[in-house]
Amino acid sequence: MDEKERLKKQLDFILEVDKVKNIFRQTYLADGNRKENDAEHSWHLALMAVLLKEYSNEEVNLGKVIPMVLTHDLVEIDAGDTYAYDEKGAQTKDARERKAADRIYGLLPEEQGTWLKELWEEFEAYETPEAKFAHVLDNCQPLFLNDASNGKSWEEHQVKKSQIYKRNRKTGEGSEAIWEYMKELIDKHIAMGHVIDDEK
Amino acid sequence: MDEKERLKKQLDFILEVDKVKNIFRQTYLADGNRKENDAEHSWHLALMAVLLKEYSNEEVNLGKVIPMVLTHDLVEIDAGDTYAYDEKGAQTKDARERKAADRIYGLLPEEQGTWLKELWEEFEAYETPEAKFAHVLDNCQPLFLNDASNGKSWEEHQVKKSQIYKRNRKTGEGSEAIWEYMKELIDKHIAMGHVIDDEK
Ligand SMILES: [Ca+2]
Repeated sequence: MDEKERLKKQLDFILEVDKVKNIFRQTYLADGNRKENDAEHSWHLALMAVLLKEYSNEEVNLGKVIPMVLTHDLVEIDAGDTYAYDEKGAQTKDARERKAADRIYGLLPEEQGTWLKELWEEFEAYETPEAKFAHVLDNCQPLFLNDASNGKSWEEHQVKKSQIYKRNRKTGEGSEAIWEYMKELIDKHIAMGHVIDDEK
Repeated sequence: MDEKERLKKQLDFILEVDKVKNIFRQTYLADGNRKENDAEHSWHLALMAVLLKEYSNEEVNLGKVIPMVLTHDLVEIDAGDTYAYDEKGAQTKDARERKAADRIYGLLPEEQGTWLKELWEEFEAYETPEAKFAHVLDNCQPLFLNDASNGKSWEEHQVKKSQIYKRNRKTGEGSEAIWEYMKELIDKHIAMGHVIDDEK
């Protein structure tokens, strides 16, 4: 493969993934005016990876965390966004996302596609320090936005404390400090009536 | 400063910069349906930094390029987006952006704020290999989107070849290979009537 053919493949991928700018999530922007999309979310996570690395329980390599968070939602181009608290969607999520990964990462030159697909699998497997820290970011960023937007998305979906805790059952393994802070915010929004306390 | 106070400062910054999701640029998304915002643009550049690093003329450190492209447009929160081909706006751009940088980076713990502000100054100074490569990305991404969206933004602004070449006068210093490819695309869109050839 000559250089130009290789560049063409990379640009095919780069333009294909432009589609995540149209995949909207359930979280509102900090100003509460509209929901955010996957590209905006992923930009925010990459910046947070740079700024909040010090809070990871274990040493992490940003050379892995950043590409991981930049691409962790690309499978949603084919598979759609499954809302964190949608149990029905969760059942078929895996198969849909694996098929999507094959197609989307398959657009790249082979070694780059394989590398990014393996980073996505590592993220999903949730075992390495980098995957755990990436999940901390993926879980705390919507919580910070929910806090800023006065719990708007939580109220809209009548989210329960048990649901947030279930989703975050491993967050403390990635960062104790951030998880402690998240729990304070959850308590605050329970007190404000934005999150339902179903554990009392 | 204790850990929690430090985290609070970092989160103040992280929420403040959420505003770039509402700063819209002149470039359309690849599908041509709406213009893109600074967060989406910066996400795209960071991913391209990872994938296209091999085309940089000089060896670059992604540990600098990535934070640089993730944050290069933050000053627009206060200073607004100055369209690439807006000559009047360009005159006051510098002063407006410097003031914005002081305020925005000033939200962070001092050593992080100074580091990011210096990275932004390095980007603006356009001298180091990392700054040159970051500019390649910043200049080629809208061009690739313009190509994908059939020159929509170029036509809207009646963009001339000389304007594109002036903006890209140093792009070849960052990446010969990408600049060669960009020139082919410009020629293609001149032939299609989307870019005005004022150099004939
Ligand atoms: Ca997701």
